[in-house]
Amino acid sequence: MAPELARSLRSLLETQRIASLGTLHQGEPHVSMVPFALLPGGSGFVIHVSRLAAHTKDMLASPQVSLLVIAPQSPDVPPQALARATIQADAIQYVEPMPGHAEAKQAYLSRFPQSSTMFELSDFSLFAIRPRSIRFVGGFAQAKTITPEGLAKVLGFDQGV
Amino acid sequence: MAPELARSLRSLLETQRIASLGTLHQGEPHVSMVPFALLPGGSGFVIHVSRLAAHTKDMLASPQVSLLVIAPQSPDVPPQALARATIQADAIQYVEPMPGHAEAKQAYLSRFPQSSTMFELSDFSLFAIRPRSIRFVGGFAQAKTITPEGLAKVLGFDQGV
Repeated sequence: MAPELARSLRSLLETQRIASLGTLHQGEPHVSMVPFALLPGGSGFVIHVSRLAAHTKDMLASPQVSLLVIAPQSPDVPPQALARATIQADAIQYVEPMPGHAEAKQAYLSRFPQSSTMFELSDFSLFAIRPRSIRFVGGFAQAKTITPEGLAKVLGFDQGV
Repeated sequence: MAPELARSLRSLLETQRIASLGTLHQGEPHVSMVPFALLPGGSGFVIHVSRLAAHTKDMLASPQVSLLVIAPQSPDVPPQALARATIQADAIQYVEPMPGHAEAKQAYLSRFPQSSTMFELSDFSLFAIRPRSIRFVGGFAQAKTITPEGLAKVLGFDQGV
């Protein structure tokens, strides 16, 4: 991945805090908003959702999801040229004391400290969003598909180190 | 629908210019970004897409889609409380001289005048996004599901008039 495009993807994922989550709902796509944080090691994303919400039931029934992160709109950028990334992924519910749960909780709370009270609610749980394929569009004619390993490198955590 | 919530939904759809489009892609949800305009009469949305794009092939194969529109992030609003609307809908390709095509094109170009050159490209076409059900979340504990008729009223085009 070209360094400029990699920097743009990293900046997008590090600065944006909400994503559009696509789940399979009764055989149809369904898109809802989710706040997200980055998992340690650049291995994916973490979301905190209520089992009362449709998307949570959807993910438990069908873990294949799609996550879209879009750069903020700006008067200087035509909407068609906004940077965005679509991540095809598997959603995996964290069940305590599953490995990685504490790290995922810490990652989420360091981005959303005001959410700590929601961790006391029994209907909320964390899900890992584990990428299978990432499609990044950095602007007009700047698109690239990368692997999960490529994403980890972009986020600065080379798995080989 | 409470007047305050209706005003908030109308403002969201009239001021936002991009949406997250969920399509069914090889049996999985897939979410991509689309600029959108409102169809005349409050009857739905219109998008302009290339048949080279995955979402276009998806819509032709499986017209059931989901559209998510989110209010801009603001330092004053926790991400969980951002206003957003999920629209479960059918995507229908406009084929000239199908009824409504000229109006849809006009609606799109009045929101995106710089897109006029893209109408000269043979791979681009307009799709109507016809709502079946709208779920609006106006903030914490402010959610409402409305019908397409309810949406038309919210947008100020009462079908009975």
